[in-house]
Amino acid sequence: MKASIIGTTGYGGAELLRILNHHPEFEIQSIHSTKEDLPIWHEYPHLYKIVNQKLQGIHPDEIAANADIVFLATPSGISGQLAGKFVDKDIKVIDLSGDLRIEAGQYEKWYKKDPVSQELIDEAIYGLSEWNAEAIKGASLIANPGCYPTATLLSLAPVIKENMIDPDSIIVDAKSGISGAGRSPSRKSSFSEANENFSAYKVNEHQHTPEIEKQLLQWNERIKPITFTTQLLPITRGIMTTSYVKLNNDCRTSKLLEFYENVYNECPFVRIRTEKNYPSVKEVAGSNYCDIGLNVDERTGRLTIISVIDNLMKGAAGQAVQNANIMFGINETTGLDFIPLYP
Amino acid sequence: MKASIIGTTGYGGAELLRILNHHPEFEIQSIHSTKEDLPIWHEYPHLYKIVNQKLQGIHPDEIAANADIVFLATPSGISGQLAGKFVDKDIKVIDLSGDLRIEAGQYEKWYKKDPVSQELIDEAIYGLSEWNAEAIKGASLIANPGCYPTATLLSLAPVIKENMIDPDSIIVDAKSGISGAGRSPSRKSSFSEANENFSAYKVNEHQHTPEIEKQLLQWNERIKPITFTTQLLPITRGIMTTSYVKLNNDCRTSKLLEFYENVYNECPFVRIRTEKNYPSVKEVAGSNYCDIGLNVDERTGRLTIISVIDNLMKGAAGQAVQNANIMFGINETTGLDFIPLYP
Amino acid sequence: MKASIIGTTGYGGAELLRILNHHPEFEIQSIHSTKEDLPIWHEYPHLYKIVNQKLQGIHPDEIAANADIVFLATPSGISGQLAGKFVDKDIKVIDLSGDLRIEAGQYEKWYKKDPVSQELIDEAIYGLSEWNAEAIKGASLIANPGCYPTATLLSLAPVIKENMIDPDSIIVDAKSGISGAGRSPSRKSSFSEANENFSAYKVNEHQHTPEIEKQLLQWNERIKPITFTTQLLPITRGIMTTSYVKLNNDCRTSKLLEFYENVYNECPFVRIRTEKNYPSVKEVAGSNYCDIGLNVDERTGRLTIISVIDNLMKGAAGQAVQNANIMFGINETTGLDFIPLYP
Amino acid sequence: MKASIIGTTGYGGAELLRILNHHPEFEIQSIHSTKEDLPIWHEYPHLYKIVNQKLQGIHPDEIAANADIVFLATPSGISGQLAGKFVDKDIKVIDLSGDLRIEAGQYEKWYKKDPVSQELIDEAIYGLSEWNAEAIKGASLIANPGCYPTATLLSLAPVIKENMIDPDSIIVDAKSGISGAGRSPSRKSSFSEANENFSAYKVNEHQHTPEIEKQLLQWNERIKPITFTTQLLPITRGIMTTSYVKLNNDCRTSKLLEFYENVYNECPFVRIRTEKNYPSVKEVAGSNYCDIGLNVDERTGRLTIISVIDNLMKGAAGQAVQNANIMFGINETTGLDFIPLYP
Repeated sequence: MKASIIGTTGYGGAELLRILNHHPEFEIQSIHSTKEDLPIWHEYPHLYKIVNQKLQGIHPDEIAANADIVFLATPSGISGQLAGKFVDKDIKVIDLSGDLRIEAGQYEKWYKKDPVSQELIDEAIYGLSEWNAEAIKGASLIANPGCYPTATLLSLAPVIKENMIDPDSIIVDAKSGISGAGRSPSRKSSFSEANENFSAYKVNEHQHTPEIEKQLLQWNERIKPITFTTQLLPITRGIMTTSYVKLNNDCRTSKLLEFYENVYNECPFVRIRTEKNYPSVKEVAGSNYCDIGLNVDERTGRLTIISVIDNLMKGAAGQAVQNANIMFGINETTGLDFIPLYP
Repeated sequence: MKASIIGTTGYGGAELLRILNHHPEFEIQSIHSTKEDLPIWHEYPHLYKIVNQKLQGIHPDEIAANADIVFLATPSGISGQLAGKFVDKDIKVIDLSGDLRIEAGQYEKWYKKDPVSQELIDEAIYGLSEWNAEAIKGASLIANPGCYPTATLLSLAPVIKENMIDPDSIIVDAKSGISGAGRSPSRKSSFSEANENFSAYKVNEHQHTPEIEKQLLQWNERIKPITFTTQLLPITRGIMTTSYVKLNNDCRTSKLLEFYENVYNECPFVRIRTEKNYPSVKEVAGSNYCDIGLNVDERTGRLTIISVIDNLMKGAAGQAVQNANIMFGINETTGLDFIPLYP
Repeated sequence: MKASIIGTTGYGGAELLRILNHHPEFEIQSIHSTKEDLPIWHEYPHLYKIVNQKLQGIHPDEIAANADIVFLATPSGISGQLAGKFVDKDIKVIDLSGDLRIEAGQYEKWYKKDPVSQELIDEAIYGLSEWNAEAIKGASLIANPGCYPTATLLSLAPVIKENMIDPDSIIVDAKSGISGAGRSPSRKSSFSEANENFSAYKVNEHQHTPEIEKQLLQWNERIKPITFTTQLLPITRGIMTTSYVKLNNDCRTSKLLEFYENVYNECPFVRIRTEKNYPSVKEVAGSNYCDIGLNVDERTGRLTIISVIDNLMKGAAGQAVQNANIMFGINETTGLDFIPLYP
Repeated sequence: MKASIIGTTGYGGAELLRILNHHPEFEIQSIHSTKEDLPIWHEYPHLYKIVNQKLQGIHPDEIAANADIVFLATPSGISGQLAGKFVDKDIKVIDLSGDLRIEAGQYEKWYKKDPVSQELIDEAIYGLSEWNAEAIKGASLIANPGCYPTATLLSLAPVIKENMIDPDSIIVDAKSGISGAGRSPSRKSSFSEANENFSAYKVNEHQHTPEIEKQLLQWNERIKPITFTTQLLPITRGIMTTSYVKLNNDCRTSKLLEFYENVYNECPFVRIRTEKNYPSVKEVAGSNYCDIGLNVDERTGRLTIISVIDNLMKGAAGQAVQNANIMFGINETTGLDFIPLYP
């Protein structure tokens, strides 16, 4: 299968290159960017003598004529526009941006940008691979989940779907590495500002909130608005979400771990950790794993769930390729068997 | 006034040296450690030609004969034992360990060590400077608060004392820099393990939990057990606590900030930040400030409070000196006017 | 004395504020920037409730009417222009940029910008405090040394002046923290790019090369062009220069250390370390110290000299204030007794 | 082929697991450590559900009975002892320690430990893959090069072998990430000490000095003792060596790059960078590449060569597997096609 990547010079695009370059079933047909005519290693010297392709301009017709699938690693606001053009030409599309994940009205409110048509949004399948595989299989347009939502949703799904918690008790304290902010320089993501620092941003305003709530509601319509805090870790890669929910019934940690283990039994990229063995972000770095640990506090009846991913892998490019595998009927782990780079 | 420091080679001890060396009212009478006879700069080359004193052994009688106040920067389990000896000799003592902060029974349960006598614990005044100044003034023995409790309690006090929240809704998601683990090498605090990482530890088991709850209950007896999560940031100094509580009544962020501003009006080291301007840990590094920001989410009725301190300053040595100032009737900011080192 | 700071929003300016805010002899008269009318804490929240002044526009006449001394923390290319205006009005000026440090022709070649007049350059005294104190005393215009030159020159001075080395053997391998790149965001100084990284830049092209050579030649006219490499450390503050020179005669490390110790005996900010005790950058962080260690390799006859400073302190704002102290006949350590922030 | 790893719990061992787990020709037969009977994921949770093997004790007879090749990732002092036992049994051995790299007398002097027999040392082939492939092919015992020597030698080889430099002018300023210090906790490698720091250690005393010189002399007997400085970078992985040599003849940078490009034309893991495009350590992280950049300074006639590797890959486990490939006649890149993890 021939894959084209649009928006190759961002971190998501570079990670797609890292994955697809070794993928046995996908071939990188072409790479695109507004910085056309530059060999990609000008932008990413680590790819010197590995990826020799040149960046090309973004000409949807041409791309469509040659590719079986297009990965959109372009920013929100641009991605959605491009997606429509490929869908019209019956090319499979995986969009890594937030443009197709939530309803147009919600998008406008949280992203503060113009949404694409609700029609296109409705056509997009939400690519949370572990839970939507059936729909993804037949899909031609995938809205690839956000990084925070991926970590959050995978960790909450079992108790939400089984109605085990107070639907008005969900609090998610999320932390992300700085690569999540993309490659464009900004004060917030400057080394001297971010290093030896830790800061909260967009408190109660993060655009991933409605994305998380939309999926939670599809799983359990009783769910109430969640509290969602995002914070910047002085690391490059990695997300941890620490989620707090009130359990409806007493339950021991070991029992709940067993339940999670069963739920994710068939999911090669979700690792439920053993009791008191909480996952750390470095333990999934460079890989497509989502590791989950949890603890029930008998003093309070609350459950604490810790979930970690690499934001550029399971939180972006990795899950995108996982979805592409599913779309084409390939084993979902194909080309994704990266062992975490530790230490 | 003459001050002696015991446990000088730990990070708390080194920070006491940094502060007291320039303090106009306290003179460093002697410094003590089990590594006696070594100039302190052997352990801390940054103090070369600044602090020329040699480490001396820990001989309470001798120390008591020469000092007006003793700072115990020794580990939990040792500090309490030493404290008793100085109290018997009418020497003022500030203990930075956890030995005197909670009831003997609780100590045994959470610290998993033998407690000192309940009598001695009862004698100790909890040194949360902003709230206990009156008691501290007359005290001869101070249990200096833990780093996490300091950040947590200062941020929760106003709403707890005024009974503004659901007493069964307190969740504290806390993050600390690695200097909080002390200077003894361990795998957990090794660079290659902690760097580019973020991990949770002692989930629902951290020994600072009962310390926080004890103070909260003194402020408001309706408070129920809290959920308290501790996590390791890949930075050297700094703590952030992100606290979540359910408000009893609707309240706008701006109103609540005003309320906080009024509560801490007279407290030079507590800075209530303006709306949407959340404090980050680097903005207090090297200083004795506790910066607090908050946001009310109208969608959920929950309040998110963000509180940052330098764990070695306001979370340890800084607050210890603040308490010493108060004990001796000096202005509490004396010797503590460090501007945060930024960037 | 009244001091005005121009270019206050850069890191050098912020560091001047940190120092001068507590300086017993200088008062911050006014702070200036192109971002006028903003309280400085909008730019630097760590200064909230500490420095309450507003940024003002850059109007030399007005500034000159009120200040005794002006610190120019403006970028190269702008600083020199401003300096001239204050010199004309008999206001003392300390320029932290590179505009006045080297001859106009050299400036053009290495900085690739238009130089100011050679006349103004000739008027400026090079502010290497430890070696030029006499000239600084009477000066009205100071060209404050660059960060790399300060560390390099202090470590080479003794052997250069005493003609102890092969004049054609000087190699300086220099490493700097990222704050040296200033506060304007760039890809190079982005966290995700600089973190977990180490890179060389401007190899054999760094504009500090002629500045170092100019001073070396003034000390010893036999000195030949040096090899000078600059590299980016993934830290915020700190410079280390590792210098290699060929000794003319056999000499033991201990003897050479003694010689250095004697040379810098009266210099409170230069600390010659003991044998095998090499300084690290963190051991001077936040302070005005320059720590120097060295080793003679008997196998090769080469001397290795290690010199560390905090680039924003001794490498910029700290040395600027040291020079201001000297200019006004105050003890040079006044307001500069910061103990390194360790750890 | 069946491979056994001894010393699996160190970072070198863990990296061997990461590589060999996906290697199409080698199968991990068994993993060994003094911590026997523990599943490896107890030590390395990132391997949970990936490597399920248990650590076994170190019983050479048993290991030899089942393995075709043994990787010794054990510390210096232990490795050499073990190597002998396997050699006696005709099992191929790759020793990652320093025990077999230099003459017994030199070992004693620089390592300050007892050497193994000179006979065993003589039997070992130095595994610098790019230069010793012929000898490696037929070898049964490989002394895998040290991390610093690998980066240094690959970057110096072309000019040394062709006699293009002053043999008494070699200065190597080397910087390493902290994983090079191994997994055992120590103060030096503690986060709070190493973070935001940069320090020199073992100046003119590093045990890799004789290893580098031995190989240089084999290439060019005129080479004189080198100056070699080792410094600790606040990063986990990565080594940069900045080498300075005096060229015998004028030569332009572009010409020299062309020469290097030709020399390494057939070497898939050595990437000669283009002019003014210097390699940084992050650009090879997680990969087996050695990237080299260089610059000739016409002012001084000196050549500056910058060489970067991942110390755990090309500097240890990666090169070990490369050597194993060569020994067994497999393509040397087999199982080693990791793209650098960037950012």
